[in-house]
This record gives sequence, C-alpha cells and structure tokens, in this order.
Amino acid sequence: MTAAEVLPAAAAAGPDTADLRVAVLGVGLMGADHVARLSRRVSGARVTVVSDAATDRADQVAAEVPGCRVVPDPLAAIADPEVDAVVVASPGRFHEEQVLACIERGTPVLCEKPLTMDADSSLAVVRAEDAHTARTGRRLVQVGFMRRFDPEYAALRELVASGGLGEPLLVHCAHRNPAVPAGVTTESVVNDSVVHEVDVARFLLGEEIAAVTVLRPRSTRRAAEGLSDPLVVLLETTGGRLVDVECFVSTGLAYEVRTEVVGEDGSALIGLDAGLVRQQAGPGGAVRGTAVTPGFRERFGRAYDVEVQRWVDAARRGGIDGPGAWDGYAAQAVCAAGVEALRTGRRTEVRMEER
Amino acid sequence: MTAAEVLPAAAAAGPDTADLRVAVLGVGLMGADHVARLSRRVSGARVTVVSDAATDRADQVAAEVPGCRVVPDPLAAIADPEVDAVVVASPGRFHEEQVLACIERGTPVLCEKPLTMDADSSLAVVRAEDAHTARTGRRLVQVGFMRRFDPEYAALRELVASGGLGEPLLVHCAHRNPAVPAGVTTESVVNDSVVHEVDVARFLLGEEIAAVTVLRPRSTRRAAEGLSDPLVVLLETTGGRLVDVECFVSTGLAYEVRTEVVGEDGSALIGLDAGLVRQQAGPGGAVRGTAVTPGFRERFGRAYDVEVQRWVDAARRGGIDGPGAWDGYAAQAVCAAGVEALRTGRRTEVRMEER
Amino acid sequence: MTAAEVLPAAAAAGPDTADLRVAVLGVGLMGADHVARLSRRVSGARVTVVSDAATDRADQVAAEVPGCRVVPDPLAAIADPEVDAVVVASPGRFHEEQVLACIERGTPVLCEKPLTMDADSSLAVVRAEDAHTARTGRRLVQVGFMRRFDPEYAALRELVASGGLGEPLLVHCAHRNPAVPAGVTTESVVNDSVVHEVDVARFLLGEEIAAVTVLRPRSTRRAAEGLSDPLVVLLETTGGRLVDVECFVSTGLAYEVRTEVVGEDGSALIGLDAGLVRQQAGPGGAVRGTAVTPGFRERFGRAYDVEVQRWVDAARRGGIDGPGAWDGYAAQAVCAAGVEALRTGRRTEVRMEER
Amino acid sequence: MTAAEVLPAAAAAGPDTADLRVAVLGVGLMGADHVARLSRRVSGARVTVVSDAATDRADQVAAEVPGCRVVPDPLAAIADPEVDAVVVASPGRFHEEQVLACIERGTPVLCEKPLTMDADSSLAVVRAEDAHTARTGRRLVQVGFMRRFDPEYAALRELVASGGLGEPLLVHCAHRNPAVPAGVTTESVVNDSVVHEVDVARFLLGEEIAAVTVLRPRSTRRAAEGLSDPLVVLLETTGGRLVDVECFVSTGLAYEVRTEVVGEDGSALIGLDAGLVRQQAGPGGAVRGTAVTPGFRERFGRAYDVEVQRWVDAARRGGIDGPGAWDGYAAQAVCAAGVEALRTGRRTEVRMEER
Repeated sequence: MTAAEVLPAAAAAGPDTADLRVAVLGVGLMGADHVARLSRRVSGARVTVVSDAATDRADQVAAEVPGCRVVPDPLAAIADPEVDAVVVASPGRFHEEQVLACIERGTPVLCEKPLTMDADSSLAVVRAEDAHTARTGRRLVQVGFMRRFDPEYAALRELVASGGLGEPLLVHCAHRNPAVPAGVTTESVVNDSVVHEVDVARFLLGEEIAAVTVLRPRSTRRAAEGLSDPLVVLLETTGGRLVDVECFVSTGLAYEVRTEVVGEDGSALIGLDAGLVRQQAGPGGAVRGTAVTPGFRERFGRAYDVEVQRWVDAARRGGIDGPGAWDGYAAQAVCAAGVEALRTGRRTEVRMEER
Repeated sequence: MTAAEVLPAAAAAGPDTADLRVAVLGVGLMGADHVARLSRRVSGARVTVVSDAATDRADQVAAEVPGCRVVPDPLAAIADPEVDAVVVASPGRFHEEQVLACIERGTPVLCEKPLTMDADSSLAVVRAEDAHTARTGRRLVQVGFMRRFDPEYAALRELVASGGLGEPLLVHCAHRNPAVPAGVTTESVVNDSVVHEVDVARFLLGEEIAAVTVLRPRSTRRAAEGLSDPLVVLLETTGGRLVDVECFVSTGLAYEVRTEVVGEDGSALIGLDAGLVRQQAGPGGAVRGTAVTPGFRERFGRAYDVEVQRWVDAARRGGIDGPGAWDGYAAQAVCAAGVEALRTGRRTEVRMEER
Repeated sequence: MTAAEVLPAAAAAGPDTADLRVAVLGVGLMGADHVARLSRRVSGARVTVVSDAATDRADQVAAEVPGCRVVPDPLAAIADPEVDAVVVASPGRFHEEQVLACIERGTPVLCEKPLTMDADSSLAVVRAEDAHTARTGRRLVQVGFMRRFDPEYAALRELVASGGLGEPLLVHCAHRNPAVPAGVTTESVVNDSVVHEVDVARFLLGEEIAAVTVLRPRSTRRAAEGLSDPLVVLLETTGGRLVDVECFVSTGLAYEVRTEVVGEDGSALIGLDAGLVRQQAGPGGAVRGTAVTPGFRERFGRAYDVEVQRWVDAARRGGIDGPGAWDGYAAQAVCAAGVEALRTGRRTEVRMEER
Repeated sequence: MTAAEVLPAAAAAGPDTADLRVAVLGVGLMGADHVARLSRRVSGARVTVVSDAATDRADQVAAEVPGCRVVPDPLAAIADPEVDAVVVASPGRFHEEQVLACIERGTPVLCEKPLTMDADSSLAVVRAEDAHTARTGRRLVQVGFMRRFDPEYAALRELVASGGLGEPLLVHCAHRNPAVPAGVTTESVVNDSVVHEVDVARFLLGEEIAAVTVLRPRSTRRAAEGLSDPLVVLLETTGGRLVDVECFVSTGLAYEVRTEVVGEDGSALIGLDAGLVRQQAGPGGAVRGTAVTPGFRERFGRAYDVEVQRWVDAARRGGIDGPGAWDGYAAQAVCAAGVEALRTGRRTEVRMEER
C-alpha cells in the first residue's frame, strides 16, 4: 500500500480536512519534542501511535496526547492501520530497518539524522527509495537536517544561490555547545555534531565534499577524559571550495552556530543572534548591513501565530490568554485623549473609569 | 449556550481531539491572514465559517479551506452551530455589536483592535463581559494587541517585571511604516498606529496613561495631503513615567518598531533586528549585550517547527519537502572520511557512489 | 599686538618650525588635560604659561612641563610676551573677562564652554570679536564644543549635510552620565549637560533653536536631593524640526551619548560604540548598515599615530616601546616556513634559534 | 656616538624641550605618511632629514616640512649630526644595512616590517643589537608591527593576558584587502600580509609558532594572473594552539581585519567596526557584549585631541577652525530659555539677536 493509497483512505474517513496520522518511533528527548510539536503547534497532523523500547516513557508521552496509542514494536507501529506517516527518532542503529520498512509500505518517513549508521547502508536506503520512486513518482524519505529550515540558513542559502555574493569560495563555521552528555567520544562529535556542518556546506554550496582533514588543537580543561575538544575540521568540496569548522562541544557557555560564506563579491554571516549580516559594495564604500524588517507581517507574523495558538488553546480550556477587554478600553480612552491633544496642541488628561 | 457547553458538544462529535471550530468575521487583509493561520499553522483549530460584507471575497477565502462555509450575516455566523469561537477582523465600527453578541452567547472572541470605536462603548463591553465572568468564572474577550506575543516584547516585559532594570523611568518608542494607505488621517494615525505604543506602555510599565501630548514637527514631503507626519507623542503614566513615541508612517523605507526602556539600573532596547540589547553594570564596567542562544531548542526550535509543518504538508500531498535520502548518504560518506581523518591525522578523500 | 604680529616674532626666534606658545588658564581637571594634550600629543604647540587661582595646583602642573612657568594673574598670563595663544579652562564666571582680554590683544583663544555666564555677555563677546574681525579679517575666538570633532558626529554631520538622509525632521538624543559631582542642580544640568545637545542640534541641522520645553518624569532613586533626573528636553528649531533629549546624569552605569537623525530618506544613529549606523533604502529592501573600513589608513591610521608617538617618547628616554628585533626575526622565520609550505603544499615546521 | 650622547647635545641646543630630530629613510606611501605624522600629529619630534632614491619625491616631501633637508645617501642620513633617531621605511631589501648602521651608531630606529629579507639576516640584527644592549643597557630597534598599538588589539591582548577568556585555544583571523598592487605574488602575500597575523598570534598568545600549513582554495576571478587568492593559513603554536587565517587580498570591497580568540572560558572578537565583542558567562546565561564607554574621556578624549590639534594649526595660521563666539552665544541663549522652561514647566521661546 502506498502513501497515495493511504491518504485517500484517511480522507475517506473524514474528508479532506483529515489530519495526517503520524507514528513517532522513539520518544526520548527528540522524539517527545516531535510528539509535542505535531500535537500542539503543527496544523494538519496528529500523533496516533508512539513506540519506544522504554514502554513506560512511551506510556507517559501517549497519555498527554488525546487519541494516541502505544505500539511497542516499531515495525508494527509502521504497519498500523491508523498510521499515514512516520517520524523516526529512535537510536541511530535502528534507523536502517525502520526506514526500509516505511519504504516497503510506501509510507512517508521523516528520519532524524543519521539516516543509517554507515555510508553503505545509507546507499542501500537511497537505492530502495529510488526503486519506489521509479514506480510511483513519489519520494518517501526526508532526513532531519533541520538547519535548512532555519530562517537564517534559508536566507543565506537564498543569497548564495541568487549569486548575491558571487562565486562562494570559503565557508567558516563555528559549532559550539555548552556541554555534551557523558560518553560522547571524539568520533561521535564528528558523526553527530560536525555532520550538521557537512550538510550545511552541501546545502549552501550545492556540491559534494571531496576530502576531509581533522586537526586537534590543545583541548579545553572542560573536555571529558579522552575527548579531543575543540576540533578544527577542513572540508574541501568537489569544486575546490574550502570549509573550515570549529567544533567545540564543551564551551561551558552557550549554543553558538555561526556560518560565514565568503564569495567573490561579498560575504555574509549568520549566527550572531542578529540575523544575516552581509558585507557588500555600496555607493559610498563597502557596507556591513542587515535587512530592516520590511513590513508588519515579517515583524509580527510570528507574534500573530503565537497569539492565535495561545488563544485557541485558552479558548478550548474556556478562557483567554492575553490582553482583555479592559486593555481595549484603556487604549480607547488614551487614544481619545490623543486625538484631543492633536486638535488642541495641548497636554490632555486621560479620562478613565475605575476598574 | 456558553463556551463551556459548546466545547463538550464538539468533543462529543470527535472526542477530545476535536478542533476548535472558529468563525472569522471580516476576511480583508487581516482576516484572511487569520484564516490561513488557523488553517495551516495553528494546531487544534479549524475555520468552519467566514463572513464578510464582500461576499465574493468570503467565497474566495472559504474555497481554500476544506469544510469552511460562508455565512454572510456576522451575527448568524456567531450563532452558527458549528462555531465554538470567533475572530473579529471586521472594520472597527462593527466590533461593538459583534463582540457583544459573542458575550451574549458565551462564545470566546478574539477581537482585533480597536475593541470598539470609542471609550464609552469599550467600557460597555468591559461591563458586559464582567457580568458574564461574574456568573461563569470565565473570560471571553481577548483583544488583538499582538505585540505582547512578540518574543522581543515578551523578553523586555519579563526583564522589566523582574526588576532587572530597576524602576523604569522612561520609554522611548519609534514606530515607522514605509507608507500608509490613501485616506489615512493624522487622527487615524493616533487611533490605529500610536495605539500600539499605548498598549506597549501599559504592558511594559503595568500602569495606566494619565496624560497625552502630541507634537507636530515639520512633515516629510512624502506625507499625504493634510497628514502631519511624523508625530511625536508624549504619554505620562499615573506613576510619573514618561513615554515618548516617534510615529512616522511615510518613511518610504521599512517597518521599524523600536522600544527602549530606561530604568534606574540599566536600559534595554528592542527592535534593531538584533534581539534584546541590554545595558547593565558588569564586573569590569557597563556592558551592552545580547543573550547568546543558550541551547539548540532556542536556536533551532523554530526550524524544527517549520521542518515538520512543511513535511506534514508535503506528506499529505504525497511527497517530501526537504533533504532526502541522498543527503543522508552523502553526510554518512563524509563523516566516515572524517572519522578516518581523525584517526590518521591525515587529509582523507571521501568515497561516494555516483548519484 | 595681534596674533599676526606675535607669530612672526616667534618664527624669528626659531624660524617657521616654531611651536605655538600657549597659556592655559585654569588647570583643574579640564585644564590639566589640555596641558598634557598640548605637551604630549599635539604637534606644533607647547605650554609656556599656566595660571590658576590655586597656585599649588598650577605649580604642580607646570613642574611636569619643560619650559613652563606659572603666572598667577590670568590677565598677566594673557599679556605674557611668551604667549601666542590662550586656552581658557577656568571657571565659567571668569570667561568673559579673559576672552575679552584676548580679543583686546588680538590673541587667539580656545574657550571651554560656556563662552560666558549669560546670553547678553556672550553677545558682547560676539560684538567685540566682530569688531576685531572687521579690522583684521581674522577670527580669534573658538568655543570648546568638542563633539564637533568626534569622528562619529563629524560623519553624521557630513551625512546630513550631503543630503544623504533627505531633509532631517527629528533628532533623538540620549545623554547619560554615570554620576555627577555633589552640588549639581537641575538648572546646571541644563546649562552644562544639555548645552552639548543644543550645540549638536545646531551643528547637525544648521539652524537655530526657537523654543524649549523641559519635562520632569519620575526621578531615579540615585538622584541627589533636589535634583530632577532624568529630564526630557524638547528643542524646536526655526525650521520646525524637533529634537528630543533624554538627559540622565545619575545612571550609575556609564557615559552614553547617543544621537539619531531621522530624515525624509533614512535615519542614522551614533553612540552605540559601533560607529554610524545608517538605515537607508537598498536594492533588496531597507538596510541597516555600518561602513566597513575602506583601507588600512582608516583601520590602522590611529595605531600608527600611537605607535610613533610612543616610539618618539621612548627614544627620547633612550629605549623602545613596542615589538623589537626578536619579533622581527620570529616573523621572518615563520614566513619562511610559510613560503615553503605554500610551495610544497605540506605542513612545515618553523626553524628558530633559541632566544 | 650613542643616543644617550646625542640627546643631551640636542638638549643643550634648546634645553629639555628639544624635539627628537628624526631622519625618515624612504618616502614612498608609508614613509611620507610617517613624515606627515611626525610633523603634524606627534608631539616632541620633528623630521630634519629625509632620504629616498627617488630624489624628486624626497624634495617634494621635504619642501612641506619646515627645517627638513634631503640627504640622498641613507647611511649619510643616519650619520647626519642633526639626526637623533631614524625611521626606516625604505624597500625591505635595504633594511638590514640601514638598521645595522643605526645599531653601529647607537641611534634608535623604528623599522617598518620586514626587519630584513630572511630569518638569518634578521637573527644577525638581533645579535648585533644584543651586543649593544649588553654594553649600554639600552635597546635600539623597534619593528613596525603597528597592530599592537591598535586599541582593539590592545584590548584583546589585555583580555587574554588577564585570563579573562581562560586558556586561549584557537584564534580565527580574516585579513581582507580590496585589492593589491600589480606584481604581488602568492609568496609575497605570505611575507607581507600574513606576516601581520603571525605577529598578532605571537602577541596575543605569547608563544612562538611551531608549524605552518597553507591551503589554496578556489581563487576569485579578481585574482591577478598566477595569484592564488584567497589562502587559508594554519599556524600551530609551540603550546598546541591553532590559528587559522583567511588571507584574501582581492575582495574588491574593503579592508577587513578580524580576529577572534576562543578560550576555555569565553571568546572575543574584534574587527567588526564595533569594538571588542566578548562572549562570556553571565548570571542569566551567556552574554555577547561590548563595553559601554565608561566616561567622557574615553568617549571624547580623541575629539579633544583633534579639536586642539586643529585649533593649534589654525591659530598658527591666524584663524579658528571650529565653533565660534556666535555658537557660544546661541548656546547660552537656548540654555537661558531652558532654565526658564524648567522653572515654569512651559514651552519657552528662545530670544536671540539677529546675526
């Protein structure tokens, strides 16, 4: 049964307003986040099944989601009749089997990285999906490189792709974590942290990585026993571009993810909590600048989303969650005084009733 | 019938997973935005009814939302059996009647500002809701001052409320629009633009406005005939604090909303597209600083939301919308080379199959 | 005897390489600073005479300057044959007499603000100098509004004067001091602090101030008894432009002097320790930007000045004050390895002798 | 004759107020800059001799400096009786001979980099000066690594040296020029541009460089024939710290010199035209901050220097160069109105005479 077949079925059950019914495999930190996201902030989906080897954790997560069941066996969860799509957030060593099972059934799957534990098995997934796509014209597997959806990365990519920086030549990255869990090894830093910069480099530059070098400078005193931290990783692309990555996972400070693309005609930097900072030629000399928010949708669109989500949540509970009628009244009273002040040119006192 | 009664009914129809069924009154720019928001980005709600005097516009909006009907009469829309809650986005002169009708029925309502057209009628709404709340313990009316939900304003409010700036003494505001529609008058600038700063001042300072002065400096050549632009508005609070507002609605440039609170122990500024910039004492002298994103949830939480929303939308259409299996494979191939480079200390070439 | 006559005399004594011989009247904080400046950082001048009612302070200052004498009577100091020019840094109440004495003798004078203690006496100085200028074609009196020489203010003025912001409409100023000496009154804050913004407004806008309003919001707990702090001052110019000034002299924090000019075509802000931040239209929307240093002179010109001043001072004492021959050797050894690394494409060890 | 002997002689000629008499060897771009600096902005020195193989250039430069002669032979210039100290700004291949001649005579010398053309000859200079220092206790040779005198580099060095960042682990540098003269080769980029980062690394970290690697990514289309641009240079220090340098000399944009030190307890970045930006732990999480100017000397000290230098120059010419008596009068008139406004609480018109 393919996704194409599943979805109309779902549609049949509750027309075209039907939500996508999602199974989440693995409900640790990341998976539980996805459950909350799908249940409370995303439109058009609901979590019908969760699955985790730790069944008490699965029970706990399911209990907070109306209409959600626990199906302990992940393959059974994938095959569940109430599942239209799957999020794989289980430990990496289970990804291969679970993703292949999704492909087998034609079920869309969002798989957290890594896709599988090594390149050969990942290639096998690619080939399996290719076969499916050849038959149906549809792709099933999305990998969870979430940075591509970050507004700053998206803007940087758009700038590079539009030619706004000219040919990109260099990328400088910093990836800093305040701390990592016990058990993290230098190899796992490459596999689990640097992998994000690998994807970022491919995403921004649109070409593959040809060679890798890893340098180990003096380590911080905060590094766990045996951990080489920070690392400096050099990625060379097939087009001769160079990407350097500082990966420093025990800074003790904060989470900093900084990327600068240096091109023939300018450079741009994200990750300073200040949007995309671009350096480019200007009429009176080079300028380092950020975009000024062009309109109220860009400035307050997110605020409207939050406002309405919180109002919906509050209304379902039978209340409000924001400024009330009194605030509306007070604003009117002040504006009335303002209009009078405008007319008279004088300081005008506001007349308000007691609350 | 109150909201309390409506919601269990809805629940009965599709248990506790039932969405809040919303009527949107007025589907101009703002209302249509709310329809899209409720339908595509907000969880737990769907738009079942839209209403607009311009019925063709209503038809057009409804056509894009599965399961949405047009009910031309707004009072009938409020009373519709498939409506649990109402968003009022109609022209301001209709707000009073529509909000009172919602209160009458006990239906939760999110009313875009202004609450009503003058202070007396707004007070009447306050009193009507008070009576309802006295009976049911529930509040029904929320007013659409969306800035309170903006992360920067929320952070600024939290900082002020926590005493982090000491007693606030002054607030400086700039409110700049690139342009305003034809027909905007200086009075409407006070009522429709400055009103946001009025609410911001009340929100940040937690007290009422006692007096208003409006100054009219030289106007820009871009100002429409008869429009005094910019204005400088001074608001004095009941506690003797002073708020100055530059309101400049024909800048020709961008949308800038800047607010600085100056307190006894420091100051904080938002609106430079750089988060909350705080000035405070430090061990080696005063520091102007911004928070560094503390963790990956703060940094990429929004990216995950976008990723999953877009994946859900794509999966419902039968595809993906983001990095695919090949990207997962490429990342694995590069990381494998990275681990080898780490072990050998040498530059290592990446081995990848042809695509 | 005029300056024109004095200077050739000086020139006679040591040709056209002769330094300007300066008397500094008043050697409190500001005057002592000027003595140090003229003696150690300014080219072409030396302090030959100091004068102060506190003669021990004058003795102390003079002792540190080779060839400098104390002349207790300021009018005698002005008339001293070894004085070509005068810096007036005495208390304000003495300025009138001292500046008039300089004009009388045709001696150039740099007078710290205020020029005199009230407008009428200042006008008398203007008239006296006008008479001198009418006779000689030369102007004698410069007033110490030093902000005009600050690179940020100069850049802002240039931007406004060039029309880069279009017609200026509003100026927002903040003037914040960490603390003021005991005895400062609200009136003296207007006279001694706000006066800088008065000059800045005139300098930036090129027109006179027509009216003033002073608002007194709630005061900080740090304000001295009887001091109203902060103040908000509104200046209206003859051209209808409006300048608002926050003057807050007990912030407990730092010294902040911020000025924003809002014009018809953009705005520009200085005082965030980040140069001139300009907002203007760009091809892809409005941009908030700063100039990127165009060349090495702009970037390191000041460093060269400091380097050479410190080297001159050290050489006069018989030593050096900066990197030495070893640093030159080390750099050469590393560059040699760098060139080899470039040729071979390999990591190359640096060969250096022991120090 | 040593410097110690020279200087008293000078002193004899014009007591202890005597200026240091400097010969500048080489008056190309850099040397002519030094002549202007010594003549017009530096206190306590004057240029008595210039020397250049291009004698017309030397004549031209000397003509603008009162009391300055041309001495074509640089060794004769060094030996000139009116020379107390020497600035070497000639082409690099002449440095060795000229600096050794200065050491021979005991004359203080400021030598632009490179000290000499290779490491062995630089070591010979070190040894020659060491012998002189052993005899006299004095050092003679300073090398022109001017970045050490830049306020941002000085602040960064102070921060590192004070332990404020903990142990430094990594340094990231970018060195970008808009363009380079014809004839610049990749090797000369290493020798003339990267050499600054070599000195910066040594200055900031206080240890020697142990190894160098140079990477050549894809070049910009703007790079001259045969020039590999940009380069990425990796410097490893004796303490295992790693410095990476982007050296990009044909950006077409501006002059950017950026340096970030990453330490165990925080990081700090200079070169964004925004002072030193520091990231460090704070009570409420990590903060990215800059110092707020602490006082008026830090904020306007430079403005005072410029004001007084320009006033001195103007007074020597017989005029003023800044705000005049009228500006002093206008300020007084406005402040008088301000004080009245303060007293009355009312808008007060300014009374001024016609100009």
